[in-house]
Amino acid sequence: MTRVSCPVLRSRLTTAHEAATHIGPGDNVGMSGFTGAGYPKAVPVALAARIRAAHERGEDFRIGLWTGASTAPDADGVLARAHGISTRLPYNSDPTLRDLINTGEVDYVDAHLSHTAQQMWFGFYGRLNVAVVEVTAALPDGLLVPSSSVGNNKTWLDQADRIVLEVNRWQPREFEGFHDVYYGTALPPHRRPLQLTGPMERIGEPYLRVDPERVVAVVETDAPDRNSPFSPPGEESRAIADHLLDFLRHEVRAGRMPPELLPLQSGVGNVANAVLAGLDDSEFTGLTAFTEVLQDAMLDLLDSGTLRAASATSFGLSDEGVARFMDRIDAYKGRILLRSEEISNHPELIRRLGVIAMNGMIEADIYGHVNSTHVMGSAIMNGIGGSGDFTRNAYLNFFLSPSTAKDGAISTIVPMASHVDHTEHDVHVIVTEQGLADLRGLSPADRADRIIECCAHPSYREALRDYIGRAKAARPQARHTPHLLDEALSWHQRFVETGHM
Amino acid sequence: MTRVSCPVLRSRLTTAHEAATHIGPGDNVGMSGFTGAGYPKAVPVALAARIRAAHERGEDFRIGLWTGASTAPDADGVLARAHGISTRLPYNSDPTLRDLINTGEVDYVDAHLSHTAQQMWFGFYGRLNVAVVEVTAALPDGLLVPSSSVGNNKTWLDQADRIVLEVNRWQPREFEGFHDVYYGTALPPHRRPLQLTGPMERIGEPYLRVDPERVVAVVETDAPDRNSPFSPPGEESRAIADHLLDFLRHEVRAGRMPPELLPLQSGVGNVANAVLAGLDDSEFTGLTAFTEVLQDAMLDLLDSGTLRAASATSFGLSDEGVARFMDRIDAYKGRILLRSEEISNHPELIRRLGVIAMNGMIEADIYGHVNSTHVMGSAIMNGIGGSGDFTRNAYLNFFLSPSTAKDGAISTIVPMASHVDHTEHDVHVIVTEQGLADLRGLSPADRADRIIECCAHPSYREALRDYIGRAKAARPQARHTPHLLDEALSWHQRFVETGHM
Repeated sequence: MTRVSCPVLRSRLTTAHEAATHIGPGDNVGMSGFTGAGYPKAVPVALAARIRAAHERGEDFRIGLWTGASTAPDADGVLARAHGISTRLPYNSDPTLRDLINTGEVDYVDAHLSHTAQQMWFGFYGRLNVAVVEVTAALPDGLLVPSSSVGNNKTWLDQADRIVLEVNRWQPREFEGFHDVYYGTALPPHRRPLQLTGPMERIGEPYLRVDPERVVAVVETDAPDRNSPFSPPGEESRAIADHLLDFLRHEVRAGRMPPELLPLQSGVGNVANAVLAGLDDSEFTGLTAFTEVLQDAMLDLLDSGTLRAASATSFGLSDEGVARFMDRIDAYKGRILLRSEEISNHPELIRRLGVIAMNGMIEADIYGHVNSTHVMGSAIMNGIGGSGDFTRNAYLNFFLSPSTAKDGAISTIVPMASHVDHTEHDVHVIVTEQGLADLRGLSPADRADRIIECCAHPSYREALRDYIGRAKAARPQARHTPHLLDEALSWHQRFVETGHM
Repeated sequence: MTRVSCPVLRSRLTTAHEAATHIGPGDNVGMSGFTGAGYPKAVPVALAARIRAAHERGEDFRIGLWTGASTAPDADGVLARAHGISTRLPYNSDPTLRDLINTGEVDYVDAHLSHTAQQMWFGFYGRLNVAVVEVTAALPDGLLVPSSSVGNNKTWLDQADRIVLEVNRWQPREFEGFHDVYYGTALPPHRRPLQLTGPMERIGEPYLRVDPERVVAVVETDAPDRNSPFSPPGEESRAIADHLLDFLRHEVRAGRMPPELLPLQSGVGNVANAVLAGLDDSEFTGLTAFTEVLQDAMLDLLDSGTLRAASATSFGLSDEGVARFMDRIDAYKGRILLRSEEISNHPELIRRLGVIAMNGMIEADIYGHVNSTHVMGSAIMNGIGGSGDFTRNAYLNFFLSPSTAKDGAISTIVPMASHVDHTEHDVHVIVTEQGLADLRGLSPADRADRIIECCAHPSYREALRDYIGRAKAARPQARHTPHLLDEALSWHQRFVETGHM
């Protein structure tokens, strides 16, 4: 049975191939999609075919691709393989596209996720020609039931010249009521306070609005999200989680945190899963989340009651997690709310709610600067995502990583970060499997001692101590942040040359 | 005639010498003061004498010193010369203290100004033992008329175990009504929206509250603020201002900014003064400011009517500016509002109002990372101040500097910033006397082209182009942000070794 009940939208029903003809060379295209959830399943594939055909005819055909965050092999991946992307924002994790960014073929604008929508409205990115947005259903009055992510969909639908909708019947029809889409945003000087004061308060509507006159095509699909396999936490991740949980207990005992903590934000991945699993096995209860992504471990917490409720902008589940979610979907209604990413990541709300931010990192330096995005200073990994929004405005923030990578060839703790995404002014706590460094209120020199002794892998500690000692001796009048400028990045250079730091 | 009308506070009247005895070794002391305005004039001097005497007796006596921002030679300076400071936060510009930080004697915690008060409330800095706060008057009911800066005074008065007040009759009694002290802050999860929607809306009270039982001493003073001499803008500063004004015109024409612009934030110094003077000579009118500091040039704008009104946390005037302000003080009432720095710099408000942020910098790299704090990677200059609060949350932000320093020996545009305070994700526009680089929506490689061609000094451009070319060639799979890791900081190292980049 069709999910397209609106007569006007039903009149636009067509094939993905025909829908893709509304996208031309040089267009900026705003697609749905966040952490592989809610991205369009059919039009990107058809568009890629169209692009390949044009290239075979010797014609130039590339688009600017804007999304919520990461999509999937059949969106970012297929367009990248067709060499159909000229610019990309604000976040990517597709390996093919990553390679094209790193060879210089694709221009990548790595932006704070809370900034993307507003900067589009401000006119900083130019015109948005086409929106391609997946939804769960189109109601008789034209209102759209959002899909498994909200991301920047409101902005794409409001701003695009032409709109293509994908209505995916694989998404559960019961999604109606899981979303809170805020329509009170405005441009300065007309902005008003966001009146949200708790993670689960509704300030918006359950539906996305669309101007049917701008909808040029509606495509029906029945295809799953790109679900990421879930692997149980390894030993290092569990050690990191244990240090973090002990620290939270310590903060509660010291009266710096209520027993039910404050709303949690958690990145995705193995370490994040270990932390959430650790919380589930702990005495903590009555928690809430104000975060970006709901992964399997968040469902565990909701099922056990450790987590009362969670606000996010997207799911990021495994196949098993999806099955579980769909099986018990009614039990989650009212306990899960998906918002636009400009709201889920809004500095105003993160600071007001006092979020506890927990994110992974690529490396940290001894003075507490964190690199979340670049490998050896130059190659992009994924992007900053929401880590800047949450870290800067959090009540308390953590950066989590094993102390080494590549079987010990890389130290996560380095003399100087080869790229800085989070500065010394922002980073509170660093955790590795070795231990936890609480940097709050410390000078750079004291931070260095703590990071080296608590977080660095023992095999790199002496070299780090030696670096600081020689840096202090070399410039006695420049000991606020001691550095040897000709050695600061030598660990990275050594890795590039020899494969070992 | 006394300004201390409250009977309880009058009973605490005493000498600075006696007041200083309430401060002991190891105490954390929260002092008033921001940009040399409103700092305590007598107690720090008396405290320094007490510290020197203790040191002469062979006793250890150092304090943790917390302020609003910078103070003056008779506060930071005299305590630094007495070697009486162990730790300092959140901002300093005193040259003696800077030297002690850079030799490693003093631990300096360089923090975002919007973070300081809340992190004190969160318990991140430990107990505040004593507050030493200058006010203009103490009313019969004990309410305090604030002085020429508000800074963190509300927090120090609320949180300190013991309070010392300085009542300075040099400050104009007419200050009553110039302040808006917000008492609605709370700790998460109890925070509410800040309901301010325009730069001049009042959300607080004209007075600071104090618990008289915690006031251990009241000292009357009659001493001027440390007023900074004002020098007329030089040629380079005027060129920077011209580029910036042309760009604002361009943005208005493009419909990205209303004709009366959006609330301005301006750092202090020669370049900032040139920008403000340029605005005053321009067609712009009906402007507002939502900023930290009101310098002489802001008074000019208010006098001419170019600026309708200004919200800040502090004055930062010259002697001449003070005389002018006092002369016409009634004309400024209702057009100037001083707030706590947690409000003047609040991310929620800066983003809501859509502030245009204009700040100086030490250097920027070709990819748009900005260093605001460190000289050659290691020595602190002043601190980040509010530049992070404003830059990250601004509608549009600018970093301004001449393209060279030390007669051309230093290039402000470098291959890699030797310290990063503002990341590529945050920086919109860089301006030097050479030109303006609009970085919005650009990839790192495109940013580099624009920064080099528009902003770098011609004598350094070829070397920068050469750097990128060789970096791209060296690692063809790492061209997102091309760097030569063994050369990235070589310009700084060369300066350290030879005095020239």
